[in-house]
Amino acid sequence: MRYDEMTKEARRALHEELSATYEEAVKRGLRLDISRGIPSTEQLELSMGMLETLKKDSDYISVNGVDTRNYGCLDGLPEAKKLMADVMETNMDNVIIFCDSSLNIMFDLVSKAMTHGIMGSTPWCRLPEVIFLCPVPGYDRHFAITEYFGIKMVNIPMDENGPDMDLVESYVNTDPRVKGIWCVPKYSNPTGVVYSDETVERFARLRPAAPDFRIYWDNAYNVHHLDFEHPRIIPELLSLAEKYGNPDIVYKFGSFSKISFSGSSIAALATSAANIEDVKATMRIQTIGHNKINQLQHYLFFRDQFTVLKHMRKHAAIMKPKFDLVRQRLEEDLGGLGIASWTDPKGGYFVSFEAEQGSAKEIVRRMKEAGVVMTAAGASFPYGIDPNDSNIRIAPSHASMEELDQAMHIFTAAARMVALEELGI
Amino acid sequence: MRYDEMTKEARRALHEELSATYEEAVKRGLRLDISRGIPSTEQLELSMGMLETLKKDSDYISVNGVDTRNYGCLDGLPEAKKLMADVMETNMDNVIIFCDSSLNIMFDLVSKAMTHGIMGSTPWCRLPEVIFLCPVPGYDRHFAITEYFGIKMVNIPMDENGPDMDLVESYVNTDPRVKGIWCVPKYSNPTGVVYSDETVERFARLRPAAPDFRIYWDNAYNVHHLDFEHPRIIPELLSLAEKYGNPDIVYKFGSFSKISFSGSSIAALATSAANIEDVKATMRIQTIGHNKINQLQHYLFFRDQFTVLKHMRKHAAIMKPKFDLVRQRLEEDLGGLGIASWTDPKGGYFVSFEAEQGSAKEIVRRMKEAGVVMTAAGASFPYGIDPNDSNIRIAPSHASMEELDQAMHIFTAAARMVALEELGI
Repeated sequence: MRYDEMTKEARRALHEELSATYEEAVKRGLRLDISRGIPSTEQLELSMGMLETLKKDSDYISVNGVDTRNYGCLDGLPEAKKLMADVMETNMDNVIIFCDSSLNIMFDLVSKAMTHGIMGSTPWCRLPEVIFLCPVPGYDRHFAITEYFGIKMVNIPMDENGPDMDLVESYVNTDPRVKGIWCVPKYSNPTGVVYSDETVERFARLRPAAPDFRIYWDNAYNVHHLDFEHPRIIPELLSLAEKYGNPDIVYKFGSFSKISFSGSSIAALATSAANIEDVKATMRIQTIGHNKINQLQHYLFFRDQFTVLKHMRKHAAIMKPKFDLVRQRLEEDLGGLGIASWTDPKGGYFVSFEAEQGSAKEIVRRMKEAGVVMTAAGASFPYGIDPNDSNIRIAPSHASMEELDQAMHIFTAAARMVALEELGI
Repeated sequence: MRYDEMTKEARRALHEELSATYEEAVKRGLRLDISRGIPSTEQLELSMGMLETLKKDSDYISVNGVDTRNYGCLDGLPEAKKLMADVMETNMDNVIIFCDSSLNIMFDLVSKAMTHGIMGSTPWCRLPEVIFLCPVPGYDRHFAITEYFGIKMVNIPMDENGPDMDLVESYVNTDPRVKGIWCVPKYSNPTGVVYSDETVERFARLRPAAPDFRIYWDNAYNVHHLDFEHPRIIPELLSLAEKYGNPDIVYKFGSFSKISFSGSSIAALATSAANIEDVKATMRIQTIGHNKINQLQHYLFFRDQFTVLKHMRKHAAIMKPKFDLVRQRLEEDLGGLGIASWTDPKGGYFVSFEAEQGSAKEIVRRMKEAGVVMTAAGASFPYGIDPNDSNIRIAPSHASMEELDQAMHIFTAAARMVALEELGI
């Protein structure tokens, strides 16, 4: 029965019951964490073989003749570029391999635009105002970068097809202050949304008022399917943008951080030839080159996209039961109560939960009291401000099944308590 | 006999003889490279054991409980910090481990100062002028960073004790536009100069007019002795600066790039607690953390500074014969002619050669014609401009003994030819 159809007395009785469950949890002094999208130990074990790909007597010479143990090869080994290009669904000539963090690439690109502009445009630090569009809810670390550089962020609502493209077009195509948009196009963080073909098409056909506008296309979960029987495919934006005469409009990001070892893998930028040249002009000043031994290890372990996909099936086999558990708990405990909704992602690392307006902070606070760390309410919005205070991100990957079950029991109890209190008890 | 004491006829005869040698070299179509300070294959072989320190069943948990295969540990594993701190002669609390390139740390620090200032100072991009002092000759990649950011560079002459400290003090202590100085204090690039105790003391006692002035102390060759019987020791600047009430004045850099694998090692910043906090505030936005598996491998292979020093003895055993060969060639072919001088470094990667004024470009041009790539003349000066056109950097490390011998024979012939032409033939 929906809570708003219950009598006040019934709600009060239910609240007492839930409070008992909740208080018991508080007393147990749990220490659980479902806050961040990090792989479990079991997932990390999948890549251990990578560390045995190189031995003392291995061949350390790259296909281009470079000794991978020495300086050089600024933009990455050809082998690593090809592997990354396959996973990123593009051509290896469009790829630069960086260090271990795609976030770091994004930060550096924005930083470079601040001090030097893009392809000769006015450095953003000299402009009175720079604006980024931020589909919400989105990835907190994206928003942290633009906030850090004093870039004004504008919320763009998301639905099941991606960002509101009418709104995106009206901003991008008319306002030269709009220099970028943060996108996670597939299995989006935190909603799990996969951008529709039409949405991707409309991105490719933007006609930006600012020549230095770029789409920051963070395809972090491109091969991170949960359902390998029905893996989701979206149009490839780089080639599509080129087709529509917009070759330079996209910075596309990829990373092996949730494929091999998180934080110790390889990350890449894929973009047009002209952007590659623009970026490399800065790279030449910034470094002599990145860790090529790590690049070689990734190539030797994965070789091509088929091995990567087989590997991702193993990740999914570990991840899917956790997502199923979360869904089961939410459906069983909250289904039909009319107090919340949640996503049912087919990939990625998150479940997005929508509580009643004004409830998210209070639910997360109670979870903390009960020893369960969740992502701060509001974190998925620019400046950490969720205008509805309703969105909560659930990250099931790192906890064990048992821990996750405990955490979700407490979570649904807390969510119900707060909803009942809102309705009056 | 000094060339300027020879008759014109004698000079002409000698020039013909040298020309024959030189032309023969040109005909041979050599392809030699003594341009960059990169290790030889033999040196890289010394560290191969590092790649076998981790196996499938190794313990991947750091002493602080962090799984090195997963996200986290922004500023580095405690094990890696301690190892790096020992090599950098400081405390591990003063150390942040970064990625594979100390150059990248320097770039990022200057970039951050441009957009955000240092410890709350005005961002440099908002100032009408920012000045860096550049002891010359110095490291071309340092100067490239400041040039990239439009920072005005002022040459500071070097002698055998380091930079002209009267001049440094007069700039730093009076002019608030002066925000930094590039230093390679030990076995300096390219001169091999080791800063004297007094020079280091005077750096520690600077009283900068600008609160955001920092000494960019690139101690790249701290343990890179050629003569292990008499390794050079200089005062430790961080502690000295603290003693003189200047705790925040130093950014000190260290790297394993010329200890283990060049470009695939670990690099670090050592600085005061307040600077560490200031830098970490940016790092938190820029990345989730750097490659900790590589950090763990470095720790497991090297363990402590004693193993590092033993390892550096092996590097020296490979490097020293090459430096001896260069010195021998220069002394035998050019000694007493009054046309050039050169350094006799006790560590590092370079020999610095001073030709007659106005000769360096021409000598390097002829070397190129004969198939020997050298660092561009002028590269060791800001904007690539050697006001005397006299300095040439010789990098003996990468060539084999045979290649080096060939290259040096051609070099001394070219140097003599140019000197004779200058004197008139």
